[in-house]
Amino acid sequence: DIKAIDQQWKVLDSEYQTLEEGHKNYNNSIVEFTKLQNKCLKDITHQNYRISQLKQLIQKCVTNGEEEERLKEDLLKQMGSRRAHVREIGESLPKPNGLYLNIVLGSINATLLDNEQRFRYKEQYEMFKLVVTSVILVVSLLDLIFQSRVCDAVLHFLLVWYHCTLTIRESILVVNGSRIKGWWRTLHFLTTVLAGVMVVWPDGSSYTKFRIQFLSYICYSSFLQFLQYYYQYGCLYRLRALGERYDMDITIQGFHSWMWRGLGFLLPFLYFGYVFQFYNAYTLYNMYTQDVSCVEWQVPAVAALYFAIFLGNTLTTSLVIQQKLTG
Amino acid sequence: DIKAIDQQWKVLDSEYQTLEEGHKNYNNSIVEFTKLQNKCLKDITHQNYRISQLKQLIQKCVTNGEEEERLKEDLLKQMGSRRAHVREIGESLPKPNGLYLNIVLGSINATLLDNEQRFRYKEQYEMFKLVVTSVILVVSLLDLIFQSRVCDAVLHFLLVWYHCTLTIRESILVVNGSRIKGWWRTLHFLTTVLAGVMVVWPDGSSYTKFRIQFLSYICYSSFLQFLQYYYQYGCLYRLRALGERYDMDITIQGFHSWMWRGLGFLLPFLYFGYVFQFYNAYTLYNMYTQDVSCVEWQVPAVAALYFAIFLGNTLTTSLVIQQKLTG
Ligand SMILES: CC(C)(COP(=O)(O)OP(=O)(O)OC[C@H]1O[C@@H](n2cnc3c(N)ncnc32)[C@H](O)[C@@H]1OP(=O)(O)O)[C@@H](O)C(=O)NCCC(=O)NCCS
Ligand SMILES: CC(C)(COP(=O)(O)OP(=O)(O)OC[C@H]1O[C@@H](n2cnc3c(N)ncnc32)[C@H](O)[C@@H]1OP(=O)(O)O)[C@@H](O)C(=O)NCCC(=O)NCCS
Repeated sequence: DIKAIDQQWKVLDSEYQTLEEGHKNYNNSIVEFTKLQNKCLKDITHQNYRISQLKQLIQKCVTNGEEEERLKEDLLKQMGSRRAHVREIGESLPKPNGLYLNIVLGSINATLLDNEQRFRYKEQYEMFKLVVTSVILVVSLLDLIFQSRVCDAVLHFLLVWYHCTLTIRESILVVNGSRIKGWWRTLHFLTTVLAGVMVVWPDGSSYTKFRIQFLSYICYSSFLQFLQYYYQYGCLYRLRALGERYDMDITIQGFHSWMWRGLGFLLPFLYFGYVFQFYNAYTLYNMYTQDVSCVEWQVPAVAALYFAIFLGNTLTTSLVIQQKLTG
Repeated sequence: DIKAIDQQWKVLDSEYQTLEEGHKNYNNSIVEFTKLQNKCLKDITHQNYRISQLKQLIQKCVTNGEEEERLKEDLLKQMGSRRAHVREIGESLPKPNGLYLNIVLGSINATLLDNEQRFRYKEQYEMFKLVVTSVILVVSLLDLIFQSRVCDAVLHFLLVWYHCTLTIRESILVVNGSRIKGWWRTLHFLTTVLAGVMVVWPDGSSYTKFRIQFLSYICYSSFLQFLQYYYQYGCLYRLRALGERYDMDITIQGFHSWMWRGLGFLLPFLYFGYVFQFYNAYTLYNMYTQDVSCVEWQVPAVAALYFAIFLGNTLTTSLVIQQKLTG
C-alpha cells in the first residue's frame, strides 16, 4: 500500500542524509590526507638534503682532541641510521612512476599504501605469470604436434604480449619498493624484441630448421617458470609470515635455510636453461656462417639476442648467488 | 668546526621529530580515509538496492483516489532524482578496474579522486596521442620515400604498440567516468589485430600492390588525428572552464556553438576517412576475388577488418551526431 511505501521511503531518506554527511567527511579527509602527504614528502626531501649537507661539512672538518674525534664518529653514525629511518618513512608514501609507466599509463598513482596490499599485488603477479605460462606451454605443445604456421604466429604474439605486460607489472612492483634487479626487466624487453623478430621471420628453410628447437626451448622455459613460481611463492609466503610474527631471529634463520634449499633445487635447472640459450645462439650462428641457404637477417639477429640473454642471465644469477653467500 | 655542526644536527633532529609525528598523523589519516571510503561505498550500495526495491513495490501498487495517485508520482520523481544524486556521490569514489585493466595492471587503484586530476589525465592522454601520431606520420612518410621492408615492420610494430597502449589508457579514462563509446575502444583492438596481420603478411605481389595505399591511409589517418586533437582539446578546455565558472547558461550555450562549429569542420574529413577505409576493403576484396596471384590469407582478413572498421565508425559517428542533434 502506497502509504507504507512512503513510510519506508522516509526511512531511506534519513539514511541518505547520513550518506551525504559521510560523503562530506570523506571529501574532507581526502583534503586532509593530501595535505599530510605533501607535508611528509617535503619534510623528507628537507631531511635528506640537510643530512648530505652536514655529512659533507663533517668530512671536511678537522678535529683536535679525542673528544671531538668521538663526537665526529658519533654524529656520522647517527646520520647513517637517520638516513635509514627516513627511507623507511618514505616507503609508505607515493613514489614517482618512472619514465616507462608514465608513457604507458600516464600519471596514475601506482603506489600501494600498505604492506598487505603489496604482498597481495606480488602474489597476483606470480599467479598471472603462472597462468599465462601454462597457456604458452599448451600452445607451444599444440604447435609442436600440429606444425601450423598460424599457430606459430599466435604463439609469437602471445609472447610479445606476455613480456610487454610483465614489464608494466614489474615497473609497478619497483615503484612499490621491490628490489628486483634491473636485468630481469631488461630481459623482458629483449624477449619482446626477440618474439617480434620471430614474427617477421619469413617461412623458409632457415625458419623451418630452427622451428623445432625454438618450440622446445619455449616448452623448457615454461617448465622453468613453474619451478620459479614454486620458489618465489615460497619466499613471498615466508616473508609475509616474517613480517607478521615477532620471533624474528628464528624465522629469519628458518627463511634462509628454506631459501637455500629452494635455490639448491632451482639453480641446476636455471643453468641448464642458460646453456640452452647459448645453444640456440650457437645453432643460429652456425647456420648463418655455414649454411648458404640462410640469407634472412633474422638469423644473426636472433642469434645475437639469444647470446645477450644467455650472458645477462648467467652473470646476474651468479652475482645474486655470490651476494647471497657473502651478504 | 664540529661543535657548530653538532648544533645544526640538533636542530635537524627536532625537525625529524616533527616529521615522525607528521608521518604518524598521515598513517592515521590513511586509516580514517579508508574507513570513510568503505562506509560511503556500502551506503551507496544500500541506497541503490533499496531504491530499486521500493520502485518495484510502487509499480505493483494499486492506487485509489487522486491523492494517492499524486503521492505515487511524487515518490517516483523523488526516486529518480535520488538515483542521480547517489550516482554523483559515487563519482568521487574508486571504481573497480574492469577485466582488461585487471589483467594488464593487476589490482592497482586507477581512480583519480578529484576533477582537476581527471582533466589533467585526459589532457595528457590527448597529448600522448598527438605525439605518437606525429612519430607515426614521420615514419610512414619516410617509409613512402625509402620503400624499405624493415621500415614497414617498424611502422607496424609501432601501430601495434600505440593501439595497445591506448586501450589501457582509455580503460583508465572509463574507470574515471569518461563516457567514451564502447566502439572507439573496440576499434583499438581491431586496429591492433590489423597491424598484427600486416606484420605477418609475407613479402609478395599482393603485399607490394597494397603497400602504397596502406601507407597513404596511415598518413591520412594521422592527419585526421591532428584534427581530432584540435577538437577534443578544445572541448576539454571549455568543459574545464565551464566547471570552474558560475554563469552556467551562457557558457553552456557558448560551448555548444563552439562544439557544432568544431564538428562542422571535422565531420567531412572524418567521413572521407571512412570512405578511405571502405576503399581499402574494396581494393583488397577485388584483389582476393580477381587476382590469382593473391593467395595469402592476409588479403581477405585485412579486407574484412577494414570493412568492420568502416561500418563501426560510420554507424557510431552518425549515431553520436544524431544524439547530439536530438538530445
Ligand atoms: C636467481 C633467483 C632464483 C634469485 O631469486 P631471489 O632470491 O628472489 O633474488 P633476490 O633476493 O635478488 O630478489 C630481489 C627481488 O627481486 C625479485 N626477483 C628476483 N628474480 C626475479 C625474476 N627473475 N623475475 C621477477 N622478479 C624477480 C624477488 O622476488 C625479490 O622481490 P622483492 O624485493 O619484492 O622481495 C631469481 O632471480 C631467478 O629465478 N632468476 C632466474 C630468472 C631467469 O633465469 N629467467 C629466464 C629463464 S630462461
Ligand atoms: C564524432 C566525434 C567527433 C564526437 O566527439 P565528442 O563530441 O567528444 O563525442 P561524445 O560527446 O560522444 O564524447 C563522449 C566522450 O568520449 C570521448 N570520445 C569521443 N570520441 C572519442 C574517440 N574517437 N576517441 C577517444 N575518446 C573519444 C569524448 O572525449 C568524451 O569524453 P568525456 O566523457 O571524458 O568528456 C568523435 O567521437 C570522433 O572524433 N570520432 C571519430 C573517431 C574516428 O573516426 N577515428 C578513426 C579515424 S580513421
